[in-house]
Amino acid sequence: MSEKRNIALFISYVGTAYHGWQIQSNGMTVQEAMQTAVYRATGQRVSLSGCGRTDAGVHARVYVCNAPLETSIPLARLPLALNSRLPEDIVVKDARIVPERFDSRFSCRKKEYTYTVHNSRVRDPFLRGRACHFPYRLDFDRVCAAAAEFVGTHDFAAVQRQGSPVKTTVRTIYHCIAEKSGDVITVRVCGNGFLYNMVRAITGTLLYAGLGKIEPGDIAGILESRDRALAGPTLPAEGLAMTGLWYDEFTLP
Amino acid sequence: MSEKRNIALFISYVGTAYHGWQIQSNGMTVQEAMQTAVYRATGQRVSLSGCGRTDAGVHARVYVCNAPLETSIPLARLPLALNSRLPEDIVVKDARIVPERFDSRFSCRKKEYTYTVHNSRVRDPFLRGRACHFPYRLDFDRVCAAAAEFVGTHDFAAVQRQGSPVKTTVRTIYHCIAEKSGDVITVRVCGNGFLYNMVRAITGTLLYAGLGKIEPGDIAGILESRDRALAGPTLPAEGLAMTGLWYDEFTLP
Repeated sequence: MSEKRNIALFISYVGTAYHGWQIQSNGMTVQEAMQTAVYRATGQRVSLSGCGRTDAGVHARVYVCNAPLETSIPLARLPLALNSRLPEDIVVKDARIVPERFDSRFSCRKKEYTYTVHNSRVRDPFLRGRACHFPYRLDFDRVCAAAAEFVGTHDFAAVQRQGSPVKTTVRTIYHCIAEKSGDVITVRVCGNGFLYNMVRAITGTLLYAGLGKIEPGDIAGILESRDRALAGPTLPAEGLAMTGLWYDEFTLP
Repeated sequence: MSEKRNIALFISYVGTAYHGWQIQSNGMTVQEAMQTAVYRATGQRVSLSGCGRTDAGVHARVYVCNAPLETSIPLARLPLALNSRLPEDIVVKDARIVPERFDSRFSCRKKEYTYTVHNSRVRDPFLRGRACHFPYRLDFDRVCAAAAEFVGTHDFAAVQRQGSPVKTTVRTIYHCIAEKSGDVITVRVCGNGFLYNMVRAITGTLLYAGLGKIEPGDIAGILESRDRALAGPTLPAEGLAMTGLWYDEFTLP
Protein backbone atom coordinates (compact mmCIF):
# COMPACT_ATOMS: atom_id res chain seq x y z
CA MET A 1 0.00 0.00 0.00
CA SER A 2 1.29 3.44 -0.91
CA GLU A 3 1.78 6.25 1.59
CA LYS A 4 -0.54 9.17 2.05
CA ARG A 5 0.13 12.00 -0.34
CA ASN A 6 -1.50 15.41 -0.47
CA ILE A 7 -3.62 15.29 -3.63
CA ALA A 8 -5.29 18.29 -5.24
CA LEU A 9 -8.36 17.68 -7.39
CA PHE A 10 -9.30 20.17 -10.11
CA ILE A 11 -13.05 20.02 -10.47
CA SER A 12 -15.92 21.81 -12.21
CA TYR A 13 -19.58 21.79 -11.25
CA VAL A 14 -23.01 23.12 -12.06
CA GLY A 15 -24.19 24.30 -8.65
CA THR A 16 -27.97 24.34 -9.25
CA ALA A 17 -28.68 21.15 -7.29
CA TYR A 18 -26.29 21.88 -4.39
CA HIS A 19 -26.30 23.88 -1.18
CA GLY A 20 -22.86 25.19 -2.05
CA TRP A 21 -19.52 23.52 -1.38
CA GLN A 22 -19.41 23.10 2.38
CA ILE A 23 -21.04 20.09 4.06
CA GLN A 24 -24.18 20.93 5.99
CA SER A 25 -27.02 19.00 7.53
CA ASN A 26 -29.93 20.46 5.56
CA GLY A 27 -29.05 19.61 1.96
CA MET A 28 -26.66 17.98 -0.49
CA THR A 29 -23.37 19.80 -1.01
CA VAL A 30 -20.55 19.47 -3.52
CA GLN A 31 -18.13 18.55 -0.73
CA GLU A 32 -20.36 15.68 0.38
CA ALA A 33 -20.78 14.41 -3.21
CA MET A 34 -17.01 14.57 -3.73
CA GLN A 35 -16.16 12.85 -0.44
CA THR A 36 -18.67 10.08 -1.18
CA ALA A 37 -17.03 9.53 -4.58
CA VAL A 38 -13.55 9.43 -2.97
CA TYR A 39 -14.80 6.88 -0.46
CA ARG A 40 -16.35 4.70 -3.16
CA ALA A 41 -13.21 4.85 -5.32
CA THR A 42 -10.56 4.48 -2.60
CA GLY A 43 -12.30 3.21 0.53
CA GLN A 44 -11.05 6.23 2.44
CA ARG A 45 -13.07 8.75 4.42
CA VAL A 46 -11.42 12.10 3.79
CA SER A 47 -12.28 15.67 4.62
CA LEU A 48 -11.59 17.69 1.48
CA SER A 49 -10.37 21.23 1.93
CA GLY A 50 -12.06 23.46 -0.69
CA CYS A 51 -10.79 26.71 -2.18
CA GLY A 52 -13.89 28.60 -1.10
CA ARG A 53 -17.37 28.28 0.27
CA THR A 54 -19.61 28.88 -2.71
CA ASP A 55 -23.26 29.71 -2.01
CA ALA A 56 -26.19 27.48 -2.87
CA GLY A 57 -26.82 27.49 -6.63
CA VAL A 58 -23.45 29.07 -7.50
CA HIS A 59 -21.41 27.30 -10.18
CA ALA A 60 -17.69 26.59 -10.53
CA ARG A 61 -16.01 26.40 -13.92
CA VAL A 62 -12.84 25.80 -11.90
CA TYR A 63 -12.52 24.68 -8.29
CA VAL A 64 -9.69 23.12 -6.32
CA CYS A 65 -9.93 20.85 -3.29
CA ASN A 66 -7.36 18.66 -1.59
CA ALA A 67 -6.80 16.04 1.08
CA PRO A 68 -4.09 13.59 2.13
CA LEU A 69 -4.99 10.37 0.36
CA GLU A 70 -3.56 6.86 0.22
CA THR A 71 -4.56 5.04 -2.92
CA SER A 72 -3.33 2.37 -5.23
CA ILE A 73 -5.10 4.04 -8.18
CA PRO A 74 -2.50 5.70 -10.43
CA LEU A 75 -2.87 9.49 -10.31
CA ALA A 76 -3.64 9.68 -14.03
CA ARG A 77 -6.62 7.34 -13.57
CA LEU A 78 -7.99 8.96 -10.42
CA PRO A 79 -10.20 11.52 -12.29
CA LEU A 80 -11.89 8.73 -14.29
CA ALA A 81 -12.31 6.57 -11.16
CA LEU A 82 -14.01 9.49 -9.38
CA ASN A 83 -16.06 10.65 -12.38
CA SER A 84 -17.68 7.25 -12.76
CA ARG A 85 -18.87 7.62 -9.14
CA LEU A 86 -19.96 11.26 -9.32
CA PRO A 87 -23.28 12.75 -10.40
CA GLU A 88 -23.26 14.30 -13.89
CA ASP A 89 -23.16 17.89 -12.62
CA ILE A 90 -19.71 17.48 -11.02
CA VAL A 91 -16.56 16.47 -12.87
CA VAL A 92 -12.93 15.92 -11.84
CA LYS A 93 -10.71 17.28 -14.60
CA ASP A 94 -7.30 16.54 -13.12
CA ALA A 95 -5.52 15.24 -10.03
CA ARG A 96 -2.04 16.31 -8.91
CA ILE A 97 0.30 15.66 -6.03
CA VAL A 98 0.93 18.91 -4.16
CA PRO A 99 3.31 19.77 -1.30
CA GLU A 100 2.26 18.58 2.15
CA ARG A 101 1.64 22.13 3.37
CA PHE A 102 -0.58 23.00 0.37
CA ASP A 103 -4.16 23.91 1.29
CA SER A 104 -6.73 24.76 -1.40
CA ARG A 105 -8.10 27.64 0.64
CA PHE A 106 -5.09 29.18 2.34
CA SER A 107 -2.63 28.67 -0.53
CA CYS A 108 -4.95 30.44 -2.97
CA ARG A 109 -3.51 33.81 -4.09
CA LYS A 110 -6.36 35.19 -6.16
CA LYS A 111 -9.82 34.14 -7.28
CA GLU A 112 -12.03 35.26 -10.12
CA TYR A 113 -15.80 35.10 -10.13
CA THR A 114 -17.91 35.84 -13.21
CA TYR A 115 -21.48 37.06 -12.99
CA THR A 116 -23.63 36.60 -16.12
CA VAL A 117 -26.59 38.87 -16.88
CA HIS A 118 -28.98 38.17 -19.75
CA ASN A 119 -30.14 41.66 -20.69
CA SER A 120 -33.09 41.07 -22.98
CA ARG A 121 -36.80 41.75 -23.03
CA VAL A 122 -37.56 38.03 -23.19
CA ARG A 123 -35.81 35.29 -21.25
CA ASP A 124 -33.69 32.62 -22.94
CA PRO A 125 -34.45 29.03 -21.88
CA PHE A 126 -30.88 28.04 -22.78
CA LEU A 127 -29.53 30.41 -20.11
CA ARG A 128 -31.87 29.21 -17.39
CA GLY A 129 -29.95 28.54 -14.17
CA ARG A 130 -26.78 30.05 -15.68
CA ALA A 131 -27.59 33.76 -15.91
CA CYS A 132 -29.75 36.38 -14.26
CA HIS A 133 -32.43 37.61 -16.65
CA PHE A 134 -32.64 41.41 -16.51
CA PRO A 135 -35.20 42.85 -18.96
CA TYR A 136 -34.60 46.59 -18.44
CA ARG A 137 -32.54 48.78 -20.73
CA LEU A 138 -28.99 49.37 -19.50
CA ASP A 139 -26.43 51.97 -20.46
CA PHE A 140 -23.48 49.63 -20.87
CA ASP A 141 -20.88 52.45 -20.81
CA ARG A 142 -22.11 53.38 -17.35
CA VAL A 143 -21.88 49.72 -16.26
CA CYS A 144 -18.23 49.66 -17.39
CA ALA A 145 -17.41 52.97 -15.73
CA ALA A 146 -18.96 51.79 -12.46
CA ALA A 147 -17.05 48.48 -12.61
CA ALA A 148 -13.72 50.29 -12.71
CA GLU A 149 -14.59 52.02 -9.42
CA PHE A 150 -14.41 48.73 -7.49
CA VAL A 151 -10.77 48.05 -8.43
CA GLY A 152 -8.22 48.55 -5.66
CA THR A 153 -7.98 47.98 -1.90
CA HIS A 154 -11.20 49.07 -0.22
CA ASP A 155 -13.46 48.31 2.69
CA PHE A 156 -16.23 46.33 0.97
CA ALA A 157 -18.69 46.27 3.92
CA ALA A 158 -21.28 48.08 1.75
CA VAL A 159 -21.43 45.09 -0.62
CA GLN A 160 -21.41 42.17 1.80
CA ARG A 161 -24.39 40.48 3.33
CA GLN A 162 -25.18 42.31 6.52
CA GLY A 163 -24.19 40.61 9.75
CA SER A 164 -21.54 38.38 8.15
CA PRO A 165 -18.95 37.62 10.85
CA VAL A 166 -15.50 38.44 9.43
CA LYS A 167 -12.40 39.96 11.02
CA THR A 168 -11.91 42.56 8.34
CA THR A 169 -14.01 43.72 5.41
CA VAL A 170 -10.98 45.11 3.54
CA ARG A 171 -10.17 43.29 0.31
CA THR A 172 -8.16 44.01 -2.82
CA ILE A 173 -9.87 43.78 -6.21
CA TYR A 174 -7.38 43.36 -9.09
CA HIS A 175 -9.86 43.62 -11.91
CA CYS A 176 -13.58 44.23 -12.29
CA ILE A 177 -14.47 44.12 -15.98
CA ALA A 178 -17.86 44.21 -17.67
CA GLU A 179 -18.06 42.71 -21.17
CA LYS A 180 -20.96 42.43 -23.60
CA SER A 181 -21.61 39.81 -26.26
CA GLY A 182 -25.00 40.13 -27.94
CA ASP A 183 -27.50 40.46 -25.09
CA VAL A 184 -25.25 38.75 -22.54
CA ILE A 185 -23.25 40.89 -20.11
CA THR A 186 -20.53 39.25 -18.03
CA VAL A 187 -18.81 40.87 -15.08
CA ARG A 188 -15.46 39.34 -14.11
CA VAL A 189 -14.21 40.22 -10.63
CA CYS A 190 -10.76 39.11 -9.49
CA GLY A 191 -9.58 39.64 -5.93
CA ASN A 192 -7.47 38.33 -3.06
CA GLY A 193 -10.64 37.37 -1.22
CA PHE A 194 -14.38 37.92 -1.24
CA LEU A 195 -16.97 38.72 1.40
CA TYR A 196 -20.30 36.94 1.59
CA ASN A 197 -22.49 37.84 -1.44
CA MET A 198 -19.90 40.43 -2.51
CA VAL A 199 -19.82 39.73 -6.27
CA ARG A 200 -23.60 39.46 -6.43
CA ALA A 201 -23.94 42.84 -4.66
CA ILE A 202 -21.24 44.46 -6.81
CA THR A 203 -23.02 43.31 -9.98
CA GLY A 204 -26.36 44.52 -8.58
CA THR A 205 -24.71 47.90 -8.04
CA LEU A 206 -23.40 47.90 -11.63
CA LEU A 207 -26.95 47.30 -12.91
CA TYR A 208 -28.17 50.23 -10.80
CA ALA A 209 -25.47 52.35 -12.43
CA GLY A 210 -26.56 51.08 -15.86
CA LEU A 211 -30.16 52.02 -15.09
CA GLY A 212 -29.13 55.50 -13.96
CA LYS A 213 -30.21 54.92 -10.35
CA ILE A 214 -26.71 55.73 -9.16
CA GLU A 215 -23.72 57.47 -10.76
CA PRO A 216 -20.44 55.61 -11.37
CA GLY A 217 -18.83 58.46 -9.45
CA ASP A 218 -20.99 57.63 -6.41
CA ILE A 219 -19.37 54.26 -5.85
CA ALA A 220 -16.32 55.46 -3.94
CA GLY A 221 -18.64 57.20 -1.49
CA ILE A 222 -20.91 54.16 -1.19
CA LEU A 223 -17.88 52.01 -0.28
CA GLU A 224 -16.68 54.62 2.25
CA SER A 225 -20.12 54.70 3.87
CA ARG A 226 -19.97 50.94 4.63
CA ASP A 227 -23.78 51.14 4.30
CA ARG A 228 -25.29 48.12 2.53
CA ALA A 229 -28.48 50.07 1.86
CA LEU A 230 -26.69 52.53 -0.46
CA ALA A 231 -25.40 49.88 -2.88
CA GLY A 232 -27.46 47.90 -5.40
CA PRO A 233 -29.31 44.64 -4.77
CA THR A 234 -27.79 41.19 -4.31
CA LEU A 235 -28.47 39.37 -7.58
CA PRO A 236 -29.57 35.70 -7.63
CA ALA A 237 -26.98 32.94 -7.13
CA GLU A 238 -27.66 31.26 -10.48
CA GLY A 239 -25.77 33.93 -12.46
CA LEU A 240 -22.54 33.45 -10.49
CA ALA A 241 -19.64 31.12 -11.26
CA MET A 242 -16.10 30.75 -9.97
CA THR A 243 -13.97 31.10 -13.10
CA GLY A 244 -10.37 31.59 -12.01
CA LEU A 245 -7.96 30.47 -9.28
CA TRP A 246 -4.31 31.36 -8.86
CA TYR A 247 -1.77 29.34 -6.88
CA ASP A 248 2.02 29.43 -6.63
CA GLU A 249 2.17 25.63 -6.88
CA PHE A 250 0.55 25.25 -10.34
CA THR A 251 -1.30 27.01 -13.13
CA LEU A 252 -4.90 26.07 -13.78
CA PRO A 253 -5.92 25.31 -17.36
CA MET B 1 -64.22 40.96 -30.34
CA SER B 2 -61.68 40.90 -33.12
CA GLU B 3 -61.72 38.43 -36.02
CA LYS B 4 -59.57 35.37 -36.32
CA ARG B 5 -56.15 36.08 -37.78
CA ASN B 6 -53.41 33.62 -38.67
CA ILE B 7 -50.73 34.26 -36.07
CA ALA B 8 -47.19 32.86 -36.20
CA LEU B 9 -45.31 32.46 -32.95
CA PHE B 10 -41.50 32.44 -32.93
CA ILE B 11 -40.43 30.27 -30.04
CA SER B 12 -37.31 28.69 -28.53
CA TYR B 13 -37.12 25.72 -26.21
CA VAL B 14 -34.83 23.39 -24.33
CA GLY B 15 -36.21 20.00 -25.31
CA THR B 16 -34.82 17.88 -22.45
CA ALA B 17 -38.14 17.57 -20.61
CA TYR B 18 -40.32 17.01 -23.71
CA HIS B 19 -41.29 14.16 -25.97
CA GLY B 20 -40.67 16.38 -28.98
CA TRP B 21 -43.05 18.88 -30.55
CA GLN B 22 -46.04 16.81 -31.58
CA ILE B 23 -48.82 15.99 -29.11
CA GLN B 24 -48.87 12.38 -28.03
CA SER B 25 -50.55 10.39 -25.30
CA ASN B 26 -47.49 9.07 -23.47
CA GLY B 27 -45.68 12.23 -22.42
CA MET B 28 -45.57 16.01 -22.30
CA THR B 29 -44.81 17.72 -25.61
CA VAL B 30 -43.93 21.28 -26.58
CA GLN B 31 -47.11 21.54 -28.65
CA GLU B 32 -49.24 20.61 -25.65
CA ALA B 33 -47.42 23.11 -23.38
CA MET B 34 -47.87 25.83 -26.02
CA GLN B 35 -51.54 25.09 -26.63
CA THR B 36 -52.21 25.09 -22.89
CA ALA B 37 -50.56 28.52 -22.60
CA VAL B 38 -52.60 29.84 -25.56
CA TYR B 39 -55.76 28.57 -23.90
CA ARG B 40 -54.90 30.16 -20.55
CA ALA B 41 -54.03 33.48 -22.19
CA THR B 42 -56.86 33.71 -24.74
CA GLY B 43 -59.51 31.16 -23.72
CA GLN B 44 -59.16 29.50 -27.11
CA ARG B 45 -58.44 25.87 -27.88
CA VAL B 46 -56.20 25.91 -30.92
CA SER B 47 -54.24 23.29 -32.81
CA LEU B 48 -50.86 24.82 -33.52
CA SER B 49 -49.14 23.83 -36.73
CA GLY B 50 -45.40 23.40 -36.04
CA CYS B 51 -42.50 23.74 -38.49
CA GLY B 52 -41.28 20.24 -37.78
CA ARG B 53 -41.62 17.23 -35.56
CA THR B 54 -38.54 17.36 -33.37
CA ASP B 55 -37.62 14.16 -31.49
CA ALA B 56 -37.75 13.72 -27.73
CA GLY B 57 -34.92 15.64 -26.07
CA VAL B 58 -34.08 17.70 -29.18
CA HIS B 59 -33.82 21.47 -28.67
CA ALA B 60 -34.94 24.44 -30.76
CA ARG B 61 -33.06 27.72 -30.75
CA VAL B 62 -35.68 28.81 -33.29
CA TYR B 63 -39.05 27.26 -34.01
CA VAL B 64 -42.17 28.57 -35.70
CA CYS B 65 -45.76 27.50 -35.11
CA ASN B 66 -49.05 29.09 -36.14
CA ALA B 67 -52.82 28.92 -35.79
CA PRO B 68 -55.84 31.09 -36.55
CA LEU B 69 -56.46 32.98 -33.33
CA GLU B 70 -59.01 35.52 -32.13
CA THR B 71 -57.72 37.59 -29.26
CA SER B 72 -58.13 41.00 -27.72
CA ILE B 73 -54.51 40.93 -26.54
CA PRO B 74 -52.44 43.32 -28.70
CA LEU B 75 -49.94 41.38 -30.82
CA ALA B 76 -46.99 43.12 -29.17
CA ARG B 77 -48.12 41.90 -25.77
CA LEU B 78 -48.96 38.33 -26.80
CA PRO B 79 -45.42 36.95 -26.20
CA LEU B 80 -45.41 38.28 -22.63
CA ALA B 81 -48.95 36.97 -22.01
CA LEU B 82 -47.88 33.51 -23.17
CA ASN B 83 -44.48 33.52 -21.46
CA SER B 84 -46.05 34.16 -18.07
CA ARG B 85 -48.10 30.98 -18.62
CA LEU B 86 -45.31 28.80 -20.04
CA PRO B 87 -42.75 26.64 -18.24
CA GLU B 88 -39.25 28.16 -18.07
CA ASP B 89 -37.82 25.89 -20.77
CA ILE B 90 -40.06 27.35 -23.51
CA VAL B 91 -40.19 30.99 -24.53
CA VAL B 92 -42.18 32.96 -27.13
CA LYS B 93 -39.85 35.55 -28.66
CA ASP B 94 -42.23 37.20 -31.11
CA ALA B 95 -45.73 36.99 -32.59
CA ARG B 96 -46.67 38.13 -36.10
CA ILE B 97 -49.73 38.15 -38.31
CA VAL B 98 -49.08 36.00 -41.38
CA PRO B 99 -51.14 35.42 -44.57
CA GLU B 100 -54.13 33.10 -44.18
CA ARG B 101 -52.51 30.41 -46.34
CA PHE B 102 -49.25 30.44 -44.31
CA ASP B 103 -48.44 27.15 -42.61
CA SER B 104 -45.34 26.75 -40.44
CA ARG B 105 -44.58 23.35 -41.89
CA PHE B 106 -45.52 23.62 -45.55
CA SER B 107 -44.40 27.22 -46.07
CA CYS B 108 -40.91 26.46 -44.72
CA ARG B 109 -38.27 26.64 -47.47
CA LYS B 110 -35.17 25.45 -45.60
CA LYS B 111 -34.22 24.34 -42.12
CA GLU B 112 -30.92 24.16 -40.33
CA TYR B 113 -30.10 21.77 -37.52
CA THR B 114 -26.90 21.96 -35.47
CA TYR B 115 -25.38 18.97 -33.75
CA THR B 116 -22.93 19.69 -30.91
CA VAL B 117 -20.18 17.25 -29.95
CA HIS B 118 -17.99 17.77 -26.89
CA ASN B 119 -14.76 16.09 -27.92
CA SER B 120 -12.78 15.86 -24.70
CA ARG B 121 -11.38 13.15 -22.46
CA VAL B 122 -13.52 14.34 -19.55
CA ARG B 123 -17.14 15.46 -19.74
CA ASP B 124 -18.21 19.05 -19.04
CA PRO B 125 -21.14 19.43 -16.62
CA PHE B 126 -22.02 22.77 -18.27
CA LEU B 127 -22.70 20.97 -21.57
CA ARG B 128 -24.88 18.26 -20.04
CA GLY B 129 -28.07 17.80 -22.04
CA ARG B 130 -26.76 20.17 -24.75
CA ALA B 131 -23.98 18.21 -26.39
CA CYS B 132 -22.91 14.63 -27.00
CA HIS B 133 -19.74 13.82 -25.07
CA PHE B 134 -17.28 11.98 -27.32
CA PRO B 135 -13.97 11.18 -25.60
CA TYR B 136 -12.04 9.65 -28.51
CA ARG B 137 -9.46 11.46 -30.59
CA LEU B 138 -10.83 12.77 -33.91
CA ASP B 139 -9.06 13.92 -37.03
CA PHE B 140 -11.02 17.13 -37.56
CA ASP B 141 -9.85 17.58 -41.18
CA ARG B 142 -11.42 14.22 -42.00
CA VAL B 143 -14.64 15.26 -40.25
CA CYS B 144 -14.77 18.40 -42.44
CA ALA B 145 -14.00 16.47 -45.63
CA ALA B 146 -16.73 13.94 -44.83
CA ALA B 147 -19.26 16.72 -44.08
CA ALA B 148 -18.82 18.18 -47.57
CA GLU B 149 -19.81 14.81 -49.09
CA PHE B 150 -23.38 15.16 -47.81
CA VAL B 151 -24.03 18.44 -49.69
CA GLY B 152 -26.32 18.18 -52.71
CA THR B 153 -29.42 16.24 -53.74
CA HIS B 154 -29.13 12.62 -52.68
CA ASP B 155 -31.16 9.67 -51.54
CA PHE B 156 -30.55 9.75 -47.78
CA ALA B 157 -32.09 6.35 -46.94
CA ALA B 158 -28.73 5.21 -45.51
CA VAL B 159 -28.94 7.85 -42.77
CA GLN B 160 -32.59 7.63 -41.76
CA ARG B 161 -34.08 5.45 -39.09
CA GLN B 162 -34.98 2.14 -40.70
CA GLY B 163 -38.63 1.54 -41.39
CA SER B 164 -39.60 5.23 -41.42
CA PRO B 165 -42.66 5.58 -43.67
CA VAL B 166 -41.95 8.38 -46.17
CA LYS B 167 -42.84 8.78 -49.85
CA THR B 168 -39.33 9.64 -50.93
CA THR B 169 -35.98 9.59 -49.19
CA VAL B 170 -34.47 12.13 -51.60
CA ARG B 171 -33.56 15.45 -50.01
CA THR B 172 -31.35 18.42 -50.87
CA ILE B 173 -28.66 19.49 -48.39
CA TYR B 174 -27.50 23.08 -48.98
CA HIS B 175 -24.70 23.09 -46.46
CA CYS B 176 -23.12 20.61 -44.05
CA ILE B 177 -20.34 22.37 -42.16
CA ALA B 178 -18.23 21.16 -39.24
CA GLU B 179 -16.68 23.85 -37.02
CA LYS B 180 -14.42 23.58 -34.00
CA SER B 181 -14.08 25.93 -31.04
CA GLY B 182 -11.83 24.60 -28.28
CA ASP B 183 -13.04 21.07 -27.62
CA VAL B 184 -16.54 21.70 -29.01
CA ILE B 185 -17.35 20.58 -32.55
CA THR B 186 -20.58 21.76 -34.16
CA VAL B 187 -22.06 20.37 -37.34
CA ARG B 188 -24.57 22.63 -39.10
CA VAL B 189 -26.78 20.91 -41.67
CA CYS B 190 -29.16 22.94 -43.80
CA GLY B 191 -31.65 21.28 -46.13
CA ASN B 192 -35.06 21.44 -47.77
CA GLY B 193 -36.24 18.65 -45.49
CA PHE B 194 -34.95 15.97 -43.17
CA LEU B 195 -35.68 12.29 -42.67
CA TYR B 196 -36.16 10.76 -39.26
CA ASN B 197 -32.86 10.80 -37.26
CA MET B 198 -31.04 12.05 -40.37
CA VAL B 199 -28.83 14.74 -38.77
CA ARG B 200 -27.98 12.47 -35.85
CA ALA B 201 -26.93 9.70 -38.27
CA ILE B 202 -25.00 12.13 -40.51
CA THR B 203 -23.05 13.40 -37.49
CA GLY B 204 -22.43 9.83 -36.32
CA THR B 205 -21.02 9.11 -39.76
CA LEU B 206 -18.78 12.19 -39.53
CA LEU B 207 -17.39 10.93 -36.21
CA TYR B 208 -16.67 7.55 -37.84
CA ALA B 209 -14.78 9.43 -40.56
CA GLY B 210 -12.89 11.39 -37.86
CA LEU B 211 -11.94 8.12 -36.14
CA GLY B 212 -10.72 6.62 -39.40
CA LYS B 213 -13.41 3.91 -39.43
CA ILE B 214 -14.59 5.11 -42.83
CA GLU B 215 -13.03 7.30 -45.51
CA PRO B 216 -14.64 10.63 -46.49
CA GLY B 217 -14.52 9.28 -50.04
CA ASP B 218 -16.70 6.32 -48.98
CA ILE B 219 -19.71 8.51 -48.22
CA ALA B 220 -21.04 8.81 -51.78
CA GLY B 221 -21.06 5.01 -51.99
CA ILE B 222 -22.73 4.65 -48.58
CA LEU B 223 -25.53 6.99 -49.72
CA GLU B 224 -25.91 5.11 -52.99
CA SER B 225 -26.17 1.79 -51.12
CA ARG B 226 -29.23 3.05 -49.13
CA ASP B 227 -27.93 0.66 -46.45
CA ARG B 228 -28.27 2.07 -42.91
CA ALA B 229 -25.73 -0.44 -41.63
CA LEU B 230 -22.91 1.12 -43.68
CA ALA B 231 -23.23 4.61 -42.18
CA GLY B 232 -22.22 5.66 -38.66
CA PRO B 233 -24.37 5.44 -35.52
CA THR B 234 -27.33 7.66 -34.64
CA LEU B 235 -26.02 10.03 -31.95
CA PRO B 236 -28.13 10.92 -28.88
CA ALA B 237 -30.91 13.50 -29.18
CA GLU B 238 -29.47 15.86 -26.55
CA GLY B 239 -26.77 17.20 -28.91
CA LEU B 240 -29.28 18.27 -31.55
CA ALA B 241 -30.97 21.65 -31.95
CA MET B 242 -33.00 23.34 -34.67
CA THR B 243 -31.06 26.52 -35.39
CA GLY B 244 -32.39 28.02 -38.61
CA LEU B 245 -35.66 28.38 -40.54
CA TRP B 246 -36.26 30.13 -43.84
CA TYR B 247 -39.64 31.43 -45.05
CA ASP B 248 -40.68 33.72 -47.87
CA GLU B 249 -43.01 35.62 -45.54
CA PHE B 250 -40.41 36.86 -43.03
CA THR B 251 -36.80 36.60 -41.90
CA LEU B 252 -36.07 35.07 -38.53
CA PRO B 253 -33.74 36.92 -36.21
